[in-house]
Formats: sequence, C-alpha cells, structure tokens
Amino acid sequence: MRITAYTVDDVPMIQKGDDLAAVVAERTKLEDDDVVVFASTIVSKAEGRRYLLNNITPTARAEELAALNAEDPHFIQYVLDNSTKVLWKHPLLVETVLGNVCINAGIDRSNTETGYILLLPADPNASARKIRDRILELTGKRVAVIITDMNGRSFREGQIGVAVGCAGIAAIHDKRGDVDLFGHELKITIQGIVDEVAACANMIMGESNEGTPIAVIRGYAYLKDDLGISVTYRKDREDFVKQALLDKL
Amino acid sequence: MRITAYTVDDVPMIQKGDDLAAVVAERTKLEDDDVVVFASTIVSKAEGRRYLLNNITPTARAEELAALNAEDPHFIQYVLDNSTKVLWKHPLLVETVLGNVCINAGIDRSNTETGYILLLPADPNASARKIRDRILELTGKRVAVIITDMNGRSFREGQIGVAVGCAGIAAIHDKRGDVDLFGHELKITIQGIVDEVAACANMIMGESNEGTPIAVIRGYAYLKDDLGISVTYRKDREDFVKQALLDKL
Ligand SMILES: Nc1nc2c(ncn2[C@@H]2O[C@H](COP(=O)(O)OP(=O)(O)O)[C@@H](O)[C@H]2O)c(=O)[nH]1
Ligand SMILES: Nc1nc2c(ncn2[C@@H]2O[C@H](COP(=O)(O)OP(=O)(O)O)[C@@H](O)[C@H]2O)c(=O)[nH]1
Ligand SMILES: [Mn+2]
Ligand SMILES: [Mn+2]
Ligand SMILES: [Mn+2]
Ligand SMILES: [Mn+2]
Repeated sequence: MRITAYTVDDVPMIQKGDDLAAVVAERTKLEDDDVVVFASTIVSKAEGRRYLLNNITPTARAEELAALNAEDPHFIQYVLDNSTKVLWKHPLLVETVLGNVCINAGIDRSNTETGYILLLPADPNASARKIRDRILELTGKRVAVIITDMNGRSFREGQIGVAVGCAGIAAIHDKRGDVDLFGHELKITIQGIVDEVAACANMIMGESNEGTPIAVIRGYAYLKDDLGISVTYRKDREDFVKQALLDKL
Repeated sequence: MRITAYTVDDVPMIQKGDDLAAVVAERTKLEDDDVVVFASTIVSKAEGRRYLLNNITPTARAEELAALNAEDPHFIQYVLDNSTKVLWKHPLLVETVLGNVCINAGIDRSNTETGYILLLPADPNASARKIRDRILELTGKRVAVIITDMNGRSFREGQIGVAVGCAGIAAIHDKRGDVDLFGHELKITIQGIVDEVAACANMIMGESNEGTPIAVIRGYAYLKDDLGISVTYRKDREDFVKQALLDKL
C-alpha cells in the first residue's frame, strides 16, 4: 500500500461563518476516497465556538480546581461546563459532554485571540458530515472527513493527534475472524483506524504557528461507515482505568 | 508538508538470523532521512525471540492469573517473566521489563507457528540502531528506524500502532518556547512524534495476513536524536493513572 499525505497551503485565518469545504476546494484538487482532516481549532472557529474568557462566573468548585492547577478560574469553569465527570483533579482530566476523555475538556487558548477560549465543536461528527456533504456538493468528490485534536495518553509522555469527530470512515475496524499468515484467528480484534489516520495528519499539521490546519490523506483503503467517533469512547463499566480513577476520587 | 508512506513488497517469512536491513535494501531504494518502520514481530523473529509455549513451568501466580483471564498458564508465565509490575489482573496489564505498559507484555502468538510465542526484542532501541547502521553500510543512506507494536489505550476502544524502539528520530518533541499564530507560548508542550509516525506506518501495514511488516515514510521533517523510546515511558510518580491502578491492586 502507498499513501500520500499533505497539508493544504495558504489556509487563511478562519473566522466565524467560513465555509471550510470551500477553503479546501479552492486550494487543492480532491479525489474520491481522500480523507480530509481538519484540526478542531478551525472547525470551532468557523462554527463560532469562540468565547470571551472572562464572560463566565466561576463557581466555588471552579475556584478550588483552578487553585489546585494554577489556572484561571474562568477557564476551569468552561472546562466544568463542558464535562460530565471529573476523573482527576490535578491535572484536570474530565469526560467531556461529547464522551471523550481528556485534560481541560479540549478547550484551547492557543491559536485564537488573547482573552478568548475555543470550545470543541458542539457535535463534531455532525460537523464532519456537513463538511463531507458540502465537499461533495462543491467538487463532486466523495471523501471522508476527520476532525482532530491533541490528547495525552496514560503511561506515555507526549500528546498525539486523535479524532474527535468523523464521517465516511469507520472509527474502529473490528478484525474478529481475520486470520494471520499461519491461519490462526487474531487475538487483537479491534484496530483504532481513525485515530491512526488522525495521528498521521497531526504529525504533518504541527502544533504551533505552522498555519496548516488541513491535511489530505490519499490512497488509503479504509472501511466506510457513518457511525462517527463515539463508538470509540469506552463505557465506564468497560473501562477499568476510568473505574479505578473514579474509585480513587 | 507532503509525505509518502508505503509498504515494502515481497518481504519473505522472516527467520532467525535474517538481515532485516538487507531485506529492505534489496526491495526498495531508500533515501536519506527516510523513516523505515518494522513491525516488532519480524525483528523478534530475526533475533530468535521465538519460544515453545509449553517450554516453561507456570507458577501458582501464573495459574491464578491464567484462570482469571481464561488464558494458558504457560503464556501467562511468559508474560510475568517479562514484566516488572502487574498493574491490572484482568485484563492483564503489565509494565514490561522494557518499561512500556501494555496488555500481556506485548507477547504475540499470531504470525508465528502454532505452539510458539514471540517475545518483543530484548532491547528494541539497540535493534533499531543496529538496523539503521546496517542500512547505512549497505546503501549509504542515513535513515531513522522505528520498531512498532499495537497497544490498547485507556478510555478509547481500538488498538493503535506505537513505537517500542527507535533510532535516529526523537521520540518526543518538546515544544516549550514555540509560539502559536497569535504569538502566545504553547500550553501543549510535548508531542509524541514517534508514536504518530508509528501509527501512520501501522495503518498501512495491517494486522493479519497482509504480509507487509515494513513501511517507509518519506519526506517527513523530523527531529533527530538517539535517545530511543524510553524517554516516553512515564515514571510511576509522574503517572497518576499508573498510581491509581497500583493503589487499587
Ligand atoms: N491557516 C490557519 N492555520 C491555523 C488556524 N488555527 C490553527 N491553525 C494551525 O493549525 C494547526 C493545528 O493548530 P492547533 O492549535 O494545534 O489545533 P488543534 O490541534 O485543533 O488544537 C497548526 O499548524 C496551527 O498553526 C487558522 O485559523 N488558520
Ligand atoms: N512478509 C511477512 N510479513 C509478516 C511476517 N510477520 C508478520 N508479518 C506481517 O506484518 C504485519 C504486522 O504483523 P503483526 O503480527 O501485527 O505484528 P506486530 O504489530 O509487530 O505485533 C502484518 O501485515 C503481518 O501479516 C513475516 O515474517 N513476513
Ligand atoms: Mn486543541
Ligand atoms: Mn493541535
Ligand atoms: Mn505484537
Ligand atoms: Mn501488529
């Protein structure tokens, strides 16, 4: 198998209301089955998910967690308002309203104006489907779309790109029934394909002032579905790590 | 940035003593700064890390953990012998003698003969350096080498490719001091570059009978060092997840 992955050149500063499908279509020639990957930052910007940091009133709980983390209580209040569970207090690991588990609910203060925060898209799978459909409309090409963010990991230092939303690509690939080179059934049964593609895209997008929030992966033979990323999020009961953290709180 | 990633065609069944650098050099034309990625399976095979499953005597502890996991006690004994700590009993999550945390110590029964197991390479960073140096000798090209395996993650379903050894590429990229598009210093400070490259390679290598255990990533501008993967492994005290699991045991 051979794939190519490239970042789209000359993407402007994204503003509320921008048509991200058009931004891509005007700057590169897409092909059927390309995977088009967007940093969540620009999807958030286009969807107007930017808020004034100080335009919220911190609760006592936010003040407490802010002190613990040497953070701004307003910022922590945004984190709490976008979470369903606190899994760890310092660092502040939460389960977000979207179902993903990450530090600070994936709320960004980088790559946006000082004094503002950027929430993740309200429904990243829906955002991905919308961009995918709009790309089809503008170019006639049927692509898959992934929306990414950076997440830390247990046990390993270093954050990596993961998917927080997707459309037209199966998030996980169930390999039960597959056989190895010797005819044995596989013990490893589920591959996190969409997160592997997200990592691949993130590696070329960069994290700081590269200005390259869109990547195209071409030539990858992927499984297609429209279930979105949520199938990846483990239920509490099925996740012994989450359970151990909750028990310790 | 534009990268290409491809799997090397016609790789044979790897046997003990095979020269993996020669296997690559005979089948593809490498360039300076390519990242050559090897599935740990074939490095293990080449290094003779294949053992007869039943050629070990399970302890009572192995019998107990085997019963809990509906596993073969011989297999579990191999897992214990290659681990320094049990972090969870079912599933059997361990810290391996190499320092990485994974289920079953990364010991494979797939893609090898029935009745045998494959241990990870004894020193995957050294293996990576050795292959890198031998590629230079054979081809005159200075490449980086990564050795991969599949690992599960906390919170997310689906295993993904990670690095278990590397040479010539920095495992993590410290971004402290970098600024974003608005001139702010980054909050996200460390990127797990080598694991992003590993995920990218794993995505095209496959998991079952594809027969493509070697991938080449070309065109990626990476940071170079020879520290290996171990800088990625979090110390117990710095890892609140590991600590919570150990406390619960
Ligand atoms: N051209 C352009 N690049 C952006 C914009 N916002 C972020 N980026 C770039 O997108 C990439 C990812 O940015 P990051 O803040 O890490 O986004 P995240 O991964 O979604 O949190 C980096 O290369 C940034 O420089 C934007 O509005 N326009
Ligand atoms: N040609 C060839 N392919 C192999 C060999 N062993 C494993 N593979 C392939 O290498 C890839 C990864 O195999 P896997 O068992 O998942 O290795 P792991 O990720 O290191 O545990 C798959 O495409 C396998 O079919 C071998 O000896 N020869
Ligand atoms: Mn982000
Ligand atoms: Mn990012
Ligand atoms: Mn393996
Ligand atoms: Mn594998």
